[in-house]
Amino acid sequence: MEEIRVHPRSSASERRATAEAGANIALTKYWGNADADLRIPANDSVSITLDRTRTVTTVALRPDLPEDEVTVDGRPLTGPARERASRHLDLLRERAGISWRARVVSRNNFPAGAGIAASASGFAALTLAGAAALGLDLSPRDLSLLARRGSGSAARSVFGGFVLLHTGARDEDAFAEPLYGPDWWDVRDLIVIVSRAEKAVPSSEGHHLAPTSALHRARLARVTELNRQLLDALARRDFTALGQAAEEDALLMHAVMMTSRPSLIYWLPETLAVIRRVQAWREEGFPAYFTIDAGPNVHILTLPAFADRLQADLRAMPGVQDVISCRPGPGASIIPNPVE
Amino acid sequence: MEEIRVHPRSSASERRATAEAGANIALTKYWGNADADLRIPANDSVSITLDRTRTVTTVALRPDLPEDEVTVDGRPLTGPARERASRHLDLLRERAGISWRARVVSRNNFPAGAGIAASASGFAALTLAGAAALGLDLSPRDLSLLARRGSGSAARSVFGGFVLLHTGARDEDAFAEPLYGPDWWDVRDLIVIVSRAEKAVPSSEGHHLAPTSALHRARLARVTELNRQLLDALARRDFTALGQAAEEDALLMHAVMMTSRPSLIYWLPETLAVIRRVQAWREEGFPAYFTIDAGPNVHILTLPAFADRLQADLRAMPGVQDVISCRPGPGASIIPNPVE
Repeated sequence: MEEIRVHPRSSASERRATAEAGANIALTKYWGNADADLRIPANDSVSITLDRTRTVTTVALRPDLPEDEVTVDGRPLTGPARERASRHLDLLRERAGISWRARVVSRNNFPAGAGIAASASGFAALTLAGAAALGLDLSPRDLSLLARRGSGSAARSVFGGFVLLHTGARDEDAFAEPLYGPDWWDVRDLIVIVSRAEKAVPSSEGHHLAPTSALHRARLARVTELNRQLLDALARRDFTALGQAAEEDALLMHAVMMTSRPSLIYWLPETLAVIRRVQAWREEGFPAYFTIDAGPNVHILTLPAFADRLQADLRAMPGVQDVISCRPGPGASIIPNPVE
Repeated sequence: MEEIRVHPRSSASERRATAEAGANIALTKYWGNADADLRIPANDSVSITLDRTRTVTTVALRPDLPEDEVTVDGRPLTGPARERASRHLDLLRERAGISWRARVVSRNNFPAGAGIAASASGFAALTLAGAAALGLDLSPRDLSLLARRGSGSAARSVFGGFVLLHTGARDEDAFAEPLYGPDWWDVRDLIVIVSRAEKAVPSSEGHHLAPTSALHRARLARVTELNRQLLDALARRDFTALGQAAEEDALLMHAVMMTSRPSLIYWLPETLAVIRRVQAWREEGFPAYFTIDAGPNVHILTLPAFADRLQADLRAMPGVQDVISCRPGPGASIIPNPVE
């Protein structure tokens, strides 16, 4: 990541910057906090930042705005969603010693709230655009730490390629770091959209329920092993080992969700149809593994030679609304001259 | 249960008896063994024996048969299934000191191998018919212990109504006992059939995989608490407490199944559609909870006043092939004069 510079259009009456960030697919999941206030995840997680599911966010701070205005995909945020963004800007403003309120305009090129982690790309882009507009000189690690305060998985979207997010005892320990750049390994992620509806329980609320599952602590212990397996799989580019670890932790996380009190079942019938299709592909010899975030949509990990064939199969399935084929993508970046 | 008498048609050249037993729905599940050879379950389980899903089995032992012949629903068993029944008859023959081979004819009035625990009613009926044909004078507890050797959940189907199956350190500790008779509480079980196909991995194999799940031990610890909750719920006839405990353990068991290595996913898309329907009913105020055995079909626990309404709703759902409405039923019994 390059050094961050304040957008040239900033002036005495406006400080403005635009940043872009990609969603990421977690191979081991973030579910449950070690510290809920600081959003310190209960376990380390490994992810791939994606090239085609991006958020572009402009932050324009002005001295005359009475309060933050945040628009996502053309809809002004209200209530807790606006407050969450506003509190996040407060963190940045405190650090810069600037109290100007902001007009934030954010656009996703994918459906928000449907398990494609819009909050990850959203808070990564907001953190970077906000920091740039405020003239903060932050290291990538500091950006990651700050992004985490907005949304745990946003800490990972600061970086491109293959990323590790650390848990930790203190705020400053829980940052993400890049393991390998996007060119290290051309793993594909076919995002299978079976629903565009907003989920009933957002992840940020679900995290609080994780400890109510009798299975939460057992999952955390197992994830430590799976992370070791994943780091090794990435180093050796061992797709089977990567896929097995990712699929197991997806099932572990959903096991925790389903058995939390109250039970959170994010899957739809179509989710299960896609899971079973992936299992059938493997029996036919195709390298394909599924993972599922806090939503009904399924991510299918595969290798480039098989992506077209699997995508065609998926599109023919009833209930599949869209398939977004992604590769490892770049980290968050400033857009110097955004088209507006 | 009455004292068991040898069927009057037994003679010097044939010893014959017919018995009937009902399937049972486990409120807390048996999944995983403390001792695989003896089929001692890893945890206590509580069940309801059902009135409408029955197996009728005739055992006819003859001195001139070269080997056991076992027919289930008109199909002769072969391979491991025949051997399992034959080994079970061996246990009984050893106890009686009689080595005659048997012709066994068993009929289920419900689809076998589809998660309605045909092995529970099957081995309960086989144990009782076999013991009777051999002239064994066995207590209900001994029958339960022996039935368990054929299929863990068969130990419960020996008794009617509400039943507790104990785990234990030794063979003689792991028996079922009746908690309350079938008239104690008119709880309904609507069995929603979404598939009549035989399951790919039978329960008896799945039990061996339970310890490969990182979640198995955490589930066992939780089930101990859930059993306490269930015993209390049964004593007070508290349907909400019963339903919550049953639903939680169904999800815990499927969590263990899904995260075992290899992963066992018994659910179909239709399974999830029924789960979501149950959740929607509860939001509307209906007392309804789901539980699912090792298969895709869903059992819906409800109270009599709501059974017809919910059953009509279920029958209108796409993918629902049948709904069997059950009440608590009687335990295994000898049929003195079977119609053949």
